[in-house]
Amino acid sequence: MKIVIIGAVAGGASAAARARRLSEDAEIILLERGPEPSFANCGLPYYVGGKIQSRDKLLVAPAERLRQRYRLDVRTLSEVTQINRDEKTVTVRDLQTGKTYDESYDKLIYATGAAAFKPPIPGIDGERIMSLRDLPDADRLLAQVVMKSDSSQPPRRCVVVGAGFIGIEVVENMIERGIETTLVELSDQILPPWDREMIEPFHSLLSDRGVKLHLSDSAVRFEDDGTELTVHLKSGAVLHADFAVVSIGVRPENTLALEAGLLCGDRGGVVTNEHMQTSDSNIYAVGDVAEVRCSITGDTTQIPLAGPANRQGRIAADHLFGRDSKYRGTQGTAIVGVFGRAAAMTGLSEKVLQRMRRAYEKVYVHPADHAGYYPGATAMSLKLLFDPENGKILGAQAVGTNGVDKRIDVIAMAIQAEMTVYDLEEAELCYAPQFGSAKDPVNMAGFVAAGVLRGDQPVVHAADVLDVATAIPADESVFLLDVRTPSEFSAGHVDGAANYPLEQLREHLHELPRDREIFVYCKVGQRGYMATRLLAQKGFNVKNLSGGYTTYRHVEIPRPVLQ
Amino acid sequence: MKIVIIGAVAGGASAAARARRLSEDAEIILLERGPEPSFANCGLPYYVGGKIQSRDKLLVAPAERLRQRYRLDVRTLSEVTQINRDEKTVTVRDLQTGKTYDESYDKLIYATGAAAFKPPIPGIDGERIMSLRDLPDADRLLAQVVMKSDSSQPPRRCVVVGAGFIGIEVVENMIERGIETTLVELSDQILPPWDREMIEPFHSLLSDRGVKLHLSDSAVRFEDDGTELTVHLKSGAVLHADFAVVSIGVRPENTLALEAGLLCGDRGGVVTNEHMQTSDSNIYAVGDVAEVRCSITGDTTQIPLAGPANRQGRIAADHLFGRDSKYRGTQGTAIVGVFGRAAAMTGLSEKVLQRMRRAYEKVYVHPADHAGYYPGATAMSLKLLFDPENGKILGAQAVGTNGVDKRIDVIAMAIQAEMTVYDLEEAELCYAPQFGSAKDPVNMAGFVAAGVLRGDQPVVHAADVLDVATAIPADESVFLLDVRTPSEFSAGHVDGAANYPLEQLREHLHELPRDREIFVYCKVGQRGYMATRLLAQKGFNVKNLSGGYTTYRHVEIPRPVLQ
Ligand SMILES: Cc1cc2nc3c(=O)[nH]c(=O)nc-3n(C[C@H](O)[C@H](O)[C@H](O)COP(=O)(O)OP(=O)(O)OC[C@H]3O[C@@H](n4cnc5c(N)ncnc54)[C@H](O)[C@@H]3O)c2cc1C
Ligand SMILES: Cc1cc2nc3c(=O)[nH]c(=O)nc-3n(C[C@H](O)[C@H](O)[C@H](O)COP(=O)(O)OP(=O)(O)OC[C@H]3O[C@@H](n4cnc5c(N)ncnc54)[C@H](O)[C@@H]3O)c2cc1C
Ligand SMILES: CC(C)(COP(=O)(O)OP(=O)(O)OC[C@H]1O[C@@H](n2cnc3c(N)ncnc32)[C@H](O)[C@@H]1OP(=O)(O)O)[C@@H](O)C(=O)NCCC(=O)NCCS
Ligand SMILES: CC(C)(COP(=O)(O)OP(=O)(O)OC[C@H]1O[C@@H](n2cnc3c(N)ncnc32)[C@H](O)[C@@H]1OP(=O)(O)O)[C@@H](O)C(=O)NCCC(=O)NCCS
Repeated sequence: MKIVIIGAVAGGASAAARARRLSEDAEIILLERGPEPSFANCGLPYYVGGKIQSRDKLLVAPAERLRQRYRLDVRTLSEVTQINRDEKTVTVRDLQTGKTYDESYDKLIYATGAAAFKPPIPGIDGERIMSLRDLPDADRLLAQVVMKSDSSQPPRRCVVVGAGFIGIEVVENMIERGIETTLVELSDQILPPWDREMIEPFHSLLSDRGVKLHLSDSAVRFEDDGTELTVHLKSGAVLHADFAVVSIGVRPENTLALEAGLLCGDRGGVVTNEHMQTSDSNIYAVGDVAEVRCSITGDTTQIPLAGPANRQGRIAADHLFGRDSKYRGTQGTAIVGVFGRAAAMTGLSEKVLQRMRRAYEKVYVHPADHAGYYPGATAMSLKLLFDPENGKILGAQAVGTNGVDKRIDVIAMAIQAEMTVYDLEEAELCYAPQFGSAKDPVNMAGFVAAGVLRGDQPVVHAADVLDVATAIPADESVFLLDVRTPSEFSAGHVDGAANYPLEQLREHLHELPRDREIFVYCKVGQRGYMATRLLAQKGFNVKNLSGGYTTYRHVEIPRPVLQ
Repeated sequence: MKIVIIGAVAGGASAAARARRLSEDAEIILLERGPEPSFANCGLPYYVGGKIQSRDKLLVAPAERLRQRYRLDVRTLSEVTQINRDEKTVTVRDLQTGKTYDESYDKLIYATGAAAFKPPIPGIDGERIMSLRDLPDADRLLAQVVMKSDSSQPPRRCVVVGAGFIGIEVVENMIERGIETTLVELSDQILPPWDREMIEPFHSLLSDRGVKLHLSDSAVRFEDDGTELTVHLKSGAVLHADFAVVSIGVRPENTLALEAGLLCGDRGGVVTNEHMQTSDSNIYAVGDVAEVRCSITGDTTQIPLAGPANRQGRIAADHLFGRDSKYRGTQGTAIVGVFGRAAAMTGLSEKVLQRMRRAYEKVYVHPADHAGYYPGATAMSLKLLFDPENGKILGAQAVGTNGVDKRIDVIAMAIQAEMTVYDLEEAELCYAPQFGSAKDPVNMAGFVAAGVLRGDQPVVHAADVLDVATAIPADESVFLLDVRTPSEFSAGHVDGAANYPLEQLREHLHELPRDREIFVYCKVGQRGYMATRLLAQKGFNVKNLSGGYTTYRHVEIPRPVLQ
């Protein structure tokens, strides 16, 4: 068996390594355009930022090891320029010699990844415009970052265009390097895969660290006058910088596939079956270049992540040797860290659910990452999205300082198992005070969600409360009830709310209206829930604001304005 | 409805709080023998150690809050001395006045917890012998710990008897306080719920921090001469100390239940149905005093943990108000931290499986907690136990510095969902280099376990390799093959092993025996696996040592001897 693999990083190298384990005798050729195979793409931002100091660290499996340990025929600086399906060959250009040759295959694995998207904006191909995908990109960017400037000169300035994962990681690392950084994002929030209210705290986090944020804006022209770069935004704003990093998404590197007539999807990904086989059964596609199925909705999509790429490579190698391995689809479990905080998610976001017009319910909790009585506990925000009929978990998002990855991983597992919010209630997780709580945040989210479904806790959401608070003329049908302490109330509350602390509520029931709906809230939702139970049993028409004033603030807060 | 609850901490207070939410009008009386309800038992060791500085922090829900917010009739220093089932009353002694009275109930919740077990050893009731269960215990112990000694005096000395969770937490906190600490444990390992080889690294961890370990030994006599305490061990060793802490397990506080004729199990726990109802349907038992069902085997057992106690209290309250809530059983998810390291587990241990004579297979991996190329990665050891037929996960244990809780929580969820090792292979978990790896430790364990089940990776275990290495006369039927580098080999290897580094193995195949079984190993199992694949395909009869030399060392190492 002769296996040729185009692209020698996450998907390709994983397929090669697995193929070798399955067959000692197969001939396995890895063709890689870049200078190194099997490097840590995900480490590049931290290499640029100086957190990862040695470039060698990024070489997860250096060419020499792939050759010796895995007996792979690794050819770097070797670009495939054509797939010749009829001949079952690929045309390879040796980038060092410029020579081309054809290489035959029995099975071909197409693992070319995804390239940074560069829209046709005037000036975008200039020297000062970077992107960050591979080692040469990182080398170039690093050179910009550490460019000598004598101390009398002002610090270097950078504009990052696009606030997805990579953009945010680049921003953090620029700030770590002391570079003045401006971030431009088309959407009204950074990290668009998350729901906006969940990511809202990151806007001030970035601002606090000196990042200048331009949301709902985009770059329309780059100008390089030889001394500095000028970035013109759609809003009319004009930014000056030494260089820019464009990170507005990636696109499957599908040119060879398209030219060879392989079926590709709407978003450009190569279409495969569950064994990662393309429309040509001798060709597999894995990783960022492949279209995937969302494991929750079944819809086709593109989700460029390293875990899926690795596992798809492994599955393709299996199938190629006659095994029945199947890819189950991608559920979109992802995490990003910035300035000591993390945002993680799995499954569907609320905006995706809305776009799909799928029925859902949601709850917010803001528990501590470990027992509050043990030093160092920090609050996280956790949002759970679930089916309003059967409680099946559809998605979750968490933002906080510690333990965010853990809760999302647990819920990711629950989603894979098609579990419900009732299963989260009964989850039995590790508890000692340094690590969690007797009722873990995952249990808490389950309790609250199940309470909503059982009708124990009718909820209202922040947007609805905001509607009431800002209605002109005032919405007399709803009574806004704040059950926090007077000092909490006076530090900030929903416009028009009346303050009856939970502890005294029972004595003041006669002062509450029976002819109006009551929206009750507290800081995070828990006292509001207690009040809701109390009032409902006393015959009031009451709903609790899920996530309380904390979530409300994240919904209410106006977009951070240009600093 | 009038509800009386005996015991106002994890199980009892949770039941009360939930009952109030379900019924605003119920009369709910919480009877607690101690001075405070709803305190953080799990924080006590850290309060004694000074990590938690304020005693108030331990009062999770102070009596005042339970009264005001939950409108509970909380009566502290109130001991129930009798349950009168016929009259549906309990007899209560007010510990302040000494008066007794009867209190009637419609439903009774029995949540008395478990008391520290004190075997009838001479001298165990002496003043210098402590245990740690509640606030008064903590106060007493703290007084011992901070007892003034002018600086000319030697540091205080403590003997801890019993190396379960509480014993280990006490040891850590004694060391933090600068107290000379000796730990005595009957078993040949500390933390007996874990398998020995997994916990082995903790023995040297404790020794390194100055703890004197006496394993396979026990206290047989305590003598207090007025100046110091002498602890006589079964081995004949004699220890001198200022005080001792006995933490050799807990026993359900079942006296009232037994006297009232409620059915109790072999281990003393009150028998309940899945709604936590005892043999008297008007009486519920929750928490440490209740017998539980192991959710994996279905066997009855006692697992004293705070999470289950809290959830059982909630379920009892539900059922009492006509809801169908059911407790699913306990799976034994637990964690303990000591000196910056953690040991976590879920499900069945190997020793329990052996005791049950249940068929199982196991694998060990030693992955990093996050991507190796990102600073700060530390290795963990992860053991996975699974059904050899269908791959169903039976249990897991992890030991390490970081991220141990996360992996066990993910696997705990998988066990709850009755998932298999094949599901772990495909788990889609958070990955960015600070948080994990593209192939998370959970995936890795799944890959290896699935490889074993598919026959891709025949494994042998450390005990078998140890048998070969120590056989007299030498076991000629097995060839021990070390595929690490020469420098790794020379730093320590299995007796009798031959060294052929993986990278050069292919050139030396002719030197390997075809008529003997080959046990191959590397540092953690991964290169050994590669070699196993290679050799098996070349016709050798080969098995890989699961967990490699790392696990081997944990099996081989002799018990740490008395320092
Ligand atoms: C800066 C950065 C940070 C990231 N951080 C994370 C993260 O934290 N978590 C996460 O899950 N994912 C992250 N990712 C995404 C992750 O790296 C990708 O999803 C994953 O690498 C995709 O694997 P792949 O094998 O499909 O493609 P790649 O890893 O991109 O490999 C494709 C290879 O194919 C080569 N190639 C392309 N065309 C040809 C050709 N014609 N001939 C020869 N070779 C060719 C390319 O040179 C490239 O090396 C990050 C990506 C980047 C760029
Ligand atoms: C030091 C320590 C550390 C621990 N650490 C952990 C940990 O890290 N993680 C974990 O999961 N678990 C831990 N536990 C175990 C956990 O605290 C228990 O499992 C849990 O508290 C059990 O709850 P319970 O309600 O059944 O009993 P308890 O919390 O013990 O409450 C029972 C209460 O009943 C009262 N009572 C008893 N008899 C009577 C009577 N006759 N009349 C009136 N009142 C009575 C007692 O005074 C007691 O306050 C720890 C326990 C201790 C002691
Ligand atoms: C490293 C790379 C070449 C793949 O090599 P690989 O050998 O398949 O992967 P790993 O080194 O992770 O090892 C996994 C294999 O070792 C086995 N293994 C791991 N630990 C083991 C242990 N302790 N005992 C036995 N086997 C073990 C696994 O079972 C698996 O083998 P399998 O697939 O046959 O089941 C490829 O993943 C790569 O290039 N990665 C870097 C690029 C990248 O992923 N970038 C994106 C993220 S930054
Ligand atoms: C605190 C204690 C009195 C129980 O009170 P509780 O109100 O049931 O528990 P919590 O404060 O954890 O809150 C959980 C409740 O609030 C609800 N809740 C939590 N966060 C919420 C939010 N953001 N929005 C709405 N509801 C929320 C949950 O749904 C749950 O209610 P439910 O059971 O009706 O579904 C009891 O657990 C206790 O005494 N604990 C300390 C003792 C102990 O556990 N010791 C051992 C460990 S150290």
